[in-house]
Amino acid sequence: MKTARPILGLTMGDPAGIGPEICLRALREPAVLAGCTPVLFGDVALLNRVIGSAGMAAVDCRVVPVAEFEGFFEIKEPLIVDCGAVDAAKVSPGKISAACGRAAYRYIEHAVRAALAEKIDGVVTAPIHKESLSLSGVEFPGHTEIFTALTGAKRSCMMLHSDKLTVSMVTTHIGYHEVPGKLTVGRVLDVIELTAEALRGLLEREPRLGVCGLNPHAGEHGLFGDGEEEKFVGPAVKTARERGIQVEGPLAPDAAFTAGQRKKFDGIVTLYHDQGHIPFKMLAFDTGVNITLGLPIIRTSVDHGTAFDIAWQGRAEASSLFSAIHVAASLAPGKLKGASR
Amino acid sequence: MKTARPILGLTMGDPAGIGPEICLRALREPAVLAGCTPVLFGDVALLNRVIGSAGMAAVDCRVVPVAEFEGFFEIKEPLIVDCGAVDAAKVSPGKISAACGRAAYRYIEHAVRAALAEKIDGVVTAPIHKESLSLSGVEFPGHTEIFTALTGAKRSCMMLHSDKLTVSMVTTHIGYHEVPGKLTVGRVLDVIELTAEALRGLLEREPRLGVCGLNPHAGEHGLFGDGEEEKFVGPAVKTARERGIQVEGPLAPDAAFTAGQRKKFDGIVTLYHDQGHIPFKMLAFDTGVNITLGLPIIRTSVDHGTAFDIAWQGRAEASSLFSAIHVAASLAPGKLKGASR
Repeated sequence: MKTARPILGLTMGDPAGIGPEICLRALREPAVLAGCTPVLFGDVALLNRVIGSAGMAAVDCRVVPVAEFEGFFEIKEPLIVDCGAVDAAKVSPGKISAACGRAAYRYIEHAVRAALAEKIDGVVTAPIHKESLSLSGVEFPGHTEIFTALTGAKRSCMMLHSDKLTVSMVTTHIGYHEVPGKLTVGRVLDVIELTAEALRGLLEREPRLGVCGLNPHAGEHGLFGDGEEEKFVGPAVKTARERGIQVEGPLAPDAAFTAGQRKKFDGIVTLYHDQGHIPFKMLAFDTGVNITLGLPIIRTSVDHGTAFDIAWQGRAEASSLFSAIHVAASLAPGKLKGASR
Repeated sequence: MKTARPILGLTMGDPAGIGPEICLRALREPAVLAGCTPVLFGDVALLNRVIGSAGMAAVDCRVVPVAEFEGFFEIKEPLIVDCGAVDAAKVSPGKISAACGRAAYRYIEHAVRAALAEKIDGVVTAPIHKESLSLSGVEFPGHTEIFTALTGAKRSCMMLHSDKLTVSMVTTHIGYHEVPGKLTVGRVLDVIELTAEALRGLLEREPRLGVCGLNPHAGEHGLFGDGEEEKFVGPAVKTARERGIQVEGPLAPDAAFTAGQRKKFDGIVTLYHDQGHIPFKMLAFDTGVNITLGLPIIRTSVDHGTAFDIAWQGRAEASSLFSAIHVAASLAPGKLKGASR
């Protein structure tokens, strides 16, 4: 299945969001078509409604019903895999609904199945809506958790990557108060190792990593917090260094992301969602890529949401999706080392 | 005591840090002397050691022993108030010590006393070291808490101010896990009101404020967290709006600080130390000013620490101190409205 141009699955995301229109743009973007053969998992009737609503040009692309695709089908050109997951006439742009949440999940299931079967070389996801997903009865808080479960990965984490900053996360979509209870030496070490592996692949050299503390000023030697820096971060950093990873920490979180400090590190491991997302979105909004590390398949994503307020209007910015496709294509030939552990 | 040029007390900060050298620079900086009459609360023997160590030119400035200053003394020119708080010969640059922590606290006590007596118009503080302070038996975690206690302020908060971003904090120097327990509608409302008052004074118009949520994506309507957004932030924002303040929230924390969002707000109220400090230090490192709101006296500060690694070497950047002096001078004539409540 390895070709000079990797075959990448795109999932259409929540039908009521900006996913459909940015995926349609990707299907005719010369830079995308030069770098990969895209296979869009979505619904054709819905895509046609979005083309009409957003005033977009029709896309000249072969359409294959999902049942045919999942048989003995050979991918030779860009495709739309018509999943029949939603009744297009009943979708309203910008509306939360169980039907859209369920459809978004179905696109992911089909894409993951194709990736595990090695019909495609990786999956790039358009945004889903967490409330629609939850309404549909899917119990996962986000893409990272869905991919981890569907691929049976032993350990995984979210990494946000751009040319300005790369951050990975020890915890992601949980409440603020749940974070301290999720910290263990093993989990921090896993995320350090996954981040080192991924950046080794992307940079083709040994990366320099930092790991943030949890408390103000990284606890100031126990003055603030419950000693999470000494209990979890310090020992994980020590073990990672013994295993040959260039890593420092715990770093004072508010000092770790200044221009001077950022230069010292290729990637910064953060302990919770906003510790990493706040600085990343300040520096790389709309151009960053979300990569799930530790999976047996390649998976990247846009770093933005469904933008319900501008859905189906033809105003959505597709640059983050193009970046996500570019990164997935660059990861695809060799795949991430150690990913299938 | 009101003069065209306000009289501002400077506290020397931890003797082993970069406080002494940046204060010495302020005493001969033309822009500082044009905007205020500085009164440095410190130790002369220590300042002379730093001048020698850092290879600085001596400062031509009148020295007054603290006992004389605290009598019937009239301030007519820049001064050094010699507090006799530390044995200069025993101080090592960059070393944590109880003696230095105690001395740093003494400078603050003398300056606050002078401000409460209206001998000076405000206080600008050089950095203290929280571990030295703690070793000396002073039980406060930082300047904000010391000033609040010494002035008997009913409500106060930290605000970080720069021309790029202004953030204030509902909680400051406490452990990560303690934050949710400190949130109340009253406290969030206090910080919204203090921030609005302060920015009204600085901008001379009604400011537009935002308030961050606590959880990823501000909880996504209860999906993450314990409903802190609905319980505390929402009601405080509602009441503040009823009182005429232009404020929005809860904002998704990771979206609140992007370039596009920052333009919408003159100030953003954050719920914990790093939620505000991470974005602020990224945008305004070394130039930002820390202002304690709600005090009966003016108090501003540098936004950096003691920088023990470069102390007494003449390499410290004084621009944040100059900014803090400039902001204190601009606040001093009218003082913050409502500050003495």
